[in-house]
Amino acid sequence: MKKKLAILLSGRGSNFEAIARAIEAGKLNAEIAVVISNRPGARGLDRAKELGLEAVCLPSRGVAREDYDARLVDELKRHNPDVICLAGFMRLLTPVMIEAFRGRILNIHPSLLPAFPGLDAQRQALEHGVRFSGCTVHFVDEGLDSGPIIVQAAVPVKDGDTVESLSERILEAEHAAYPRAIALVLSGAYRTEGRRVVRLKEK
Amino acid sequence: MKKKLAILLSGRGSNFEAIARAIEAGKLNAEIAVVISNRPGARGLDRAKELGLEAVCLPSRGVAREDYDARLVDELKRHNPDVICLAGFMRLLTPVMIEAFRGRILNIHPSLLPAFPGLDAQRQALEHGVRFSGCTVHFVDEGLDSGPIIVQAAVPVKDGDTVESLSERILEAEHAAYPRAIALVLSGAYRTEGRRVVRLKEK
Repeated sequence: MKKKLAILLSGRGSNFEAIARAIEAGKLNAEIAVVISNRPGARGLDRAKELGLEAVCLPSRGVAREDYDARLVDELKRHNPDVICLAGFMRLLTPVMIEAFRGRILNIHPSLLPAFPGLDAQRQALEHGVRFSGCTVHFVDEGLDSGPIIVQAAVPVKDGDTVESLSERILEAEHAAYPRAIALVLSGAYRTEGRRVVRLKEK
Repeated sequence: MKKKLAILLSGRGSNFEAIARAIEAGKLNAEIAVVISNRPGARGLDRAKELGLEAVCLPSRGVAREDYDARLVDELKRHNPDVICLAGFMRLLTPVMIEAFRGRILNIHPSLLPAFPGLDAQRQALEHGVRFSGCTVHFVDEGLDSGPIIVQAAVPVKDGDTVESLSERILEAEHAAYPRAIALVLSGAYRTEGRRVVRLKEK
């Protein structure tokens, strides 16, 4: 039986599409059990429907964070996902979610964490004047973009870069990194030493 | 006339040697006017003498920081350096030094700043579980490893890495990055926009 993914998004969900493409291309052995958006108009939701996937809108506006997360947990449990992928899900998770799926919630962030957590990471990187940025797939814990790192990819920052051009370069790296990180977590071929995620040697 | 470098170090000064080699190989058009150590036994001082360079020991033990920096400024001014390179100089500079040579003091740090400033950057990186680290050459300002970034190089962190193996890989990157950063600063072919050091296009 294939391992099951749940995808949470709030917008276009380009990382969701990259994951779907990786599955389609046979690079990621899994299936997407459900795509959930907290925003009714999210383009990613339409895309999920086009792909014939189960697409659920669970609006978050006006709902207290813990209450929302309790509903999310209920919805997710119906689909029994092995891994939950945040793909531009613009909401901090509470312990209600994190404890229900500890070690199985992944997020992707457009910087080489721990540099530039939080919003506008690409702009932060540009304004700081770094010569390399990138993306980070990490386990989600109670902090902001702070959980153990699974995969990172580095990309150069170029002299003429704008927020847009840098974001585009990082996004391309994200689309390759996220399926790779999911595959590692689904394989179980790693162990965690403190914050370090150490891949086990192939036999 | 060749541009002049002053090197400040406290230990073996492997970056000093890398700079000297880059000059020798014709990759860096400059000369080392003086090598100064705050520690009498520094191996870099012996190496400077072996290379026929002016080597000055200015012991810092027991000297108040501002007083030490005033002596350092006096000594440096005798040699009229265009750029001052910190190469494992284990002392925070005070405004006395920084104001005397603003925009002309460079440091190299074994991480992709702003991640892991301060001591034991390689150990910090390993314990944080990052998949990439590297080195940063930056202008020195009043903060800790906080000045505008000139050059960075990224290196992978491998699963089996120890502090030693990671440090060695980063050091190799440092030896290439430092001469490159010095050459850029000596050429003057950059402008600073906020914290960003933007290289000017070659004509």
